[in-house]
Amino acid sequence: MKFKDEMKERIGHIEAVLDWYLPRPEGLQKTVLTAMNTTVKSGGKRLRPMLMEETYHMFGGEGEVIEPFMAAIEMIHTYSLIHDDLPALDNDDYRRGKKTCHIVYGEDMAILAGDALLNYAYETASKAFDMAKGQETERVIQAMKILASKPGIYGMIGGQTADVELEGTPLTMEQILFIHKNKTSALIEACMMIGAVLAGADEDEVKRMEQCGEAIGLAFQIQDDILDLVGDEEEIGKPVGSDERNHKATYVTLKGLEQSKEDVREISMKAIDILKDYDQENGYLTRLTEYLISRTK
Amino acid sequence: MKFKDEMKERIGHIEAVLDWYLPRPEGLQKTVLTAMNTTVKSGGKRLRPMLMEETYHMFGGEGEVIEPFMAAIEMIHTYSLIHDDLPALDNDDYRRGKKTCHIVYGEDMAILAGDALLNYAYETASKAFDMAKGQETERVIQAMKILASKPGIYGMIGGQTADVELEGTPLTMEQILFIHKNKTSALIEACMMIGAVLAGADEDEVKRMEQCGEAIGLAFQIQDDILDLVGDEEEIGKPVGSDERNHKATYVTLKGLEQSKEDVREISMKAIDILKDYDQENGYLTRLTEYLISRTK
Repeated sequence: MKFKDEMKERIGHIEAVLDWYLPRPEGLQKTVLTAMNTTVKSGGKRLRPMLMEETYHMFGGEGEVIEPFMAAIEMIHTYSLIHDDLPALDNDDYRRGKKTCHIVYGEDMAILAGDALLNYAYETASKAFDMAKGQETERVIQAMKILASKPGIYGMIGGQTADVELEGTPLTMEQILFIHKNKTSALIEACMMIGAVLAGADEDEVKRMEQCGEAIGLAFQIQDDILDLVGDEEEIGKPVGSDERNHKATYVTLKGLEQSKEDVREISMKAIDILKDYDQENGYLTRLTEYLISRTK
Repeated sequence: MKFKDEMKERIGHIEAVLDWYLPRPEGLQKTVLTAMNTTVKSGGKRLRPMLMEETYHMFGGEGEVIEPFMAAIEMIHTYSLIHDDLPALDNDDYRRGKKTCHIVYGEDMAILAGDALLNYAYETASKAFDMAKGQETERVIQAMKILASKPGIYGMIGGQTADVELEGTPLTMEQILFIHKNKTSALIEACMMIGAVLAGADEDEVKRMEQCGEAIGLAFQIQDDILDLVGDEEEIGKPVGSDERNHKATYVTLKGLEQSKEDVREISMKAIDILKDYDQENGYLTRLTEYLISRTK
């Protein structure tokens, strides 16, 4: 099977999991429930739950206890996009070629839908406690801790804050790395760590997955900066060079295009080297990482 | 000791707990950390952590495992106020006589600070797992589930959504009760249930605390509607009759002032009757409930 077909199959499975865990749009709070559903279901590569599930399988995990966490991480990712798109933040009317949440449901409902997704992520993940048997309970506790810390102030929100606040200033490489590692890598780290933890990986293995996630996130984000500069408008779904138009210094504007491409390769190799120790048959996770470097959208 | 002095003593203790669990404002994400700290520390009755701790004590709880949950519930309460005050929602420039978060830190930082507080609430509560000994772990799991559900779409956010969406329409009593029970009671229920659960109360006792919390929340909210209509502007810290100016039907406009006052007494008695089964010495929790009915601000 071609990689893209394998990916499509996995996306289908992930979307079934999401559908299972998303709340039914009914009752007096129907609008916010509809906004949550529509935005989560509006597409995307499902990279985060995919990385989580594949890491879980790589470490021998076989149960369904991973599924509420897969849904939870996608809810957290989606809430961050909804709030990021708000007029007071990035003020984006379109994402993935579709109208953003606040354009469709209004700013008030978009704020509430974001809050609701973040909150419901923890409500969803806590359902894993009911699925855990014996020593799995301790694993779910560890997974909950990771899910509660990586998206927060010492992770994604920390990076988002720095990104917003430093906008328009001449960024240093240190600041750019802080933003990328927190805003982007932190969630990817969470995915791979949770996958490993729930499969029963030991502390050292979880640490290695954290390093792997950091590298994948960083390579992914630099690749994003590259695509933003050179990508084709229609293909990528947002105006090319929009970061540059916002006077935003990026990794690429500081390091140059060629060096950035070289860095993506090098950082990705670091991730693939870590995976080699566990993914000896050059399995899906390794090929996914390779795909992420070479993607053109 | 007078009740108000007892209350002051407890507020002092709660604020020490909050201070312990709030993040230090430092690093590239300093602004959001400062906004979180300032807003949580900007005062208030600390009613929610107080109800939680007192319920814990009433059921014989003695450990510190309650403290991360006390901090967490106040963080969740504060995030809801920050987002509620935003221009796209209630658009309030002042709260408790002080400038609101978005006025001081900007709308972008206020959105992020709210997100950060909600997220950090779960990060904080998850620290209780490290403090739990033996069978306490199972109690912390139950407490986490309550903390993840009551503030969410089938609790506080659900009520908030209905409140926002129905604004300007002629509300029915059913809708008003839905809003009050979800927007206000849900968090109070969470407090009393978590206090009971962590102290080792059984399922029936936890259920009774949920009913008690619902009654306290409802009485508190109707009292709020009453105070909004008749209160003294300076004393209450926000313009008198602001709900009415926003063309908002309230419990009081539907039922009339005298009937509403009678209902507050009756609903509060329901709560006090439940407490009597556990709080046989007419302890602090009962007196706190009585105080909440008779408060004038």
